[in-house]
Amino acid sequence: MSDAPQAFHVSRYELERFMLAVLARAGADASSAEALTRALVTASRMGTDSHGLRLLPHYIRALQGGRIAGAPAMHFERRLPATGYLDAGDGFGHLAGYTAMEHAADMADEVGMGAVAVGRSSHFGAAGCYALAAAERGLIGLAVCNSDPFVLLHQGSRPFHGTNPIAFAAPVEGENPFLLDMATSSIPWNRVQQYGAIGRELPDQVAADSTGEVTRIPKEVAALLPLGGSDFGFKGAGLGSMVEVLSSTLSGMLNGFRLLPMGGPDMKTPRGASHFCLALRPDAFAPGDPFPECMRRYLEDLRAQPGRDGAQVMAPGDREWDCRARRDAEGIPLDSANQRAYAELAETLNVPALQPLA
Amino acid sequence: MSDAPQAFHVSRYELERFMLAVLARAGADASSAEALTRALVTASRMGTDSHGLRLLPHYIRALQGGRIAGAPAMHFERRLPATGYLDAGDGFGHLAGYTAMEHAADMADEVGMGAVAVGRSSHFGAAGCYALAAAERGLIGLAVCNSDPFVLLHQGSRPFHGTNPIAFAAPVEGENPFLLDMATSSIPWNRVQQYGAIGRELPDQVAADSTGEVTRIPKEVAALLPLGGSDFGFKGAGLGSMVEVLSSTLSGMLNGFRLLPMGGPDMKTPRGASHFCLALRPDAFAPGDPFPECMRRYLEDLRAQPGRDGAQVMAPGDREWDCRARRDAEGIPLDSANQRAYAELAETLNVPALQPLA
Repeated sequence: MSDAPQAFHVSRYELERFMLAVLARAGADASSAEALTRALVTASRMGTDSHGLRLLPHYIRALQGGRIAGAPAMHFERRLPATGYLDAGDGFGHLAGYTAMEHAADMADEVGMGAVAVGRSSHFGAAGCYALAAAERGLIGLAVCNSDPFVLLHQGSRPFHGTNPIAFAAPVEGENPFLLDMATSSIPWNRVQQYGAIGRELPDQVAADSTGEVTRIPKEVAALLPLGGSDFGFKGAGLGSMVEVLSSTLSGMLNGFRLLPMGGPDMKTPRGASHFCLALRPDAFAPGDPFPECMRRYLEDLRAQPGRDGAQVMAPGDREWDCRARRDAEGIPLDSANQRAYAELAETLNVPALQPLA
Repeated sequence: MSDAPQAFHVSRYELERFMLAVLARAGADASSAEALTRALVTASRMGTDSHGLRLLPHYIRALQGGRIAGAPAMHFERRLPATGYLDAGDGFGHLAGYTAMEHAADMADEVGMGAVAVGRSSHFGAAGCYALAAAERGLIGLAVCNSDPFVLLHQGSRPFHGTNPIAFAAPVEGENPFLLDMATSSIPWNRVQQYGAIGRELPDQVAADSTGEVTRIPKEVAALLPLGGSDFGFKGAGLGSMVEVLSSTLSGMLNGFRLLPMGGPDMKTPRGASHFCLALRPDAFAPGDPFPECMRRYLEDLRAQPGRDGAQVMAPGDREWDCRARRDAEGIPLDSANQRAYAELAETLNVPALQPLA
C-alpha cells in the first residue's frame, strides 16, 4: 500500500502493454491475457498492491508449469433464469471471474438478479475487480472466493479457511462506485512477510503461532487470526465460512482446507479454486427507482461525519479511488523486488523491458 | 447469553401462549402476533437473549404508542421474476421479515434466486430468524437490516451506523442449518449496559467515548466501534455500510443515521426501518446437485479441526443449536428484570401470568 518515494513508476498503459506481451509469450490466449491484465492493473491502480502487479511472475509460473490452462475450455450453463454454473476449465480465475459476473449481470438485466457459481478455477486476484465490473454496468455486485488455508477458526490452532474475501460494489451516479473489498482475516498473509523483512511487530490480535496463541512476532507466525481476534474471531471465521459455502460448496469443489497451496511447489496440478458472483438491479426493488438519490444522500451523510483527532472518515472505496487518481497521474510504483522480477520476465520471455515514466 | 442458575424457567410453549395472549390484548392481529412470537421464541431458545423475550415489553410499548401498526396493510409487489418490494405498512418487522423471505423463497423456487427489499418496517429482532426460515425450506438465506446509530465509522467520532446485522443460513442434510447471525459491531449495545451494571470492564477495542477514543469503562461509552476495532474497523464499518446499501438504499428509506431511536421517547412516530431478504436454491448452480454432500464434507472437515488449549471449534450455529436443545429440555430462563416486566404485562393486559416450569 505504500507510495513511499520510488525511483521506478510506470504508466498503466505501459504496464498493460508489458503484461499482455508477457502473457502471450507464456501461452495465454487473448481473452485470458486481457482478463488477467485488466484485474492486475485495476488492483495496482487502486493501491491493492497485494493483488496487483507483484503477482504476475507467480501467474506466469503457474501457466508455464501447467497448473493453469492458458487457453481454457470454459463452459457456462444457465441452470434457471437467475442462476448458472461456470466450469472454468482450469483457466485463469480472472477470466472466470469476469465471465461469471458478466453472465450474472446479463441475468440480472433480464430477471432482476443473477448469480453464478464457478468451479475448476484458479486464484482470481482481487475480488473487488468482479464486484466493480457489475457496478460499472449499473448493477450491485457481490464476489467471493475461497483459497488455501491461512486463517484459524475461532479458537482453532490449525489454519483452515483461506483469507476468503468478500467484495461488494454499487453504482453511484456521477461518481466512482461504492466498493468494499475485504479479506475475512484482519491482514493478508504477505503483510506478515513484509513486517518480518523490516523487523517490525505486527498489530495485536491478527496472527498466531503454531499452537494458536496470539503472537506479534512475524517469525513466530503460523496462521492468521480471523477478523475480530481472540475475542470476536467467531465473526470473521463465520464470514469466511459463509464465503466457503457460497464458493466451494455451491460449485461442488473442494473446500479451502483441501486446496493445494497457491505458492507451490506443485505448479503442475490444477487447484480447483471456486468463486461466486452475484449481480442485482437496483431499480428492480422499490417502485420509482429511489436508489440513486438514496445512495447519494447516504454517502453525503457518511462523508459529513466528524473524524477522531481530525481524521477524515471515508466511504468504502474512497481510499482506493484517491489512490487510483494519484497513480494515474504519477504512475504505479514498483519496488526493487518487483523491478528485478519484471526485468527477469522481460529477459526470459524476450519481451521489451518495462519502461519507467520519465 | 448466561444460563446461570435461575429460579425461573419457562417452556417454549408457555412462553408462546403468553406472548400471543399479550399481543392480542395489545392490539396485534393474528399474523403479527404469530410472527413476533415465532421470532422472539426462536431467539430465546437459541440463546440470543439480546433479541429474545426481553424485547416483548418494548414491542408492546411501541404497539400501544402507535409507532407500530398492529394490523398493518402490508403490500408486496413482484417487480421482476427474481425481485420484489414489500411495503410493510409500519407493522412489526418480524411479520415483514418472514413475509419478505417467503416471497424471496417462492421466487427462488421458481427462478433459482429471489430477493425482496422491505421498506416502512420496524425493528425485526434477530436477523437470523429470517435466514433460518429460508434454510428450513431447503434454501440458502441472507437477511440484513439497518438500525438507528450506535456504531462509529472507522476513525469516526459520532455514531453513524446501527449494529446492522448480517444473517446467513444454509440447509444441512439431516442436521440443523448452518447459521451465521452477527452484528457488524463486536458487541451489542446492551452488553455495555450489562457490564456497567456489574462494574465490569469491557474487552479492548469494542467501544469508544464521545470523542471516538477507545474506552473499556462502560459509563464512558458513547458509541460502539465497528468490528475490527481501531486498526481494522474499516472492515466492520464497510460491512455495516453494505448492509445499509442493501436495506435502506434499495428500499428507498432513510439511512440508519436518520432513524428515530428504537428506545424512544417517541413511541408514536413510525421509524421506517428497512430490511433485505435473499434466498437461493443450492441445487440451481453446479449440475448434479453436489451441495448436500459438499456441505457435509466441509462441516466434517471444520469440526475435526484441533482447538487451542483443548477448546472445541464450532461451525456457525453449533453453539445456538446446543443452547436450543438445552433450553428445550430445561426451559428458557428469565432473569429478575424480565420476571418483573412479564408480571407487569400480565397484570396491565389482564392475561394469565407466565407459569414457570416446576
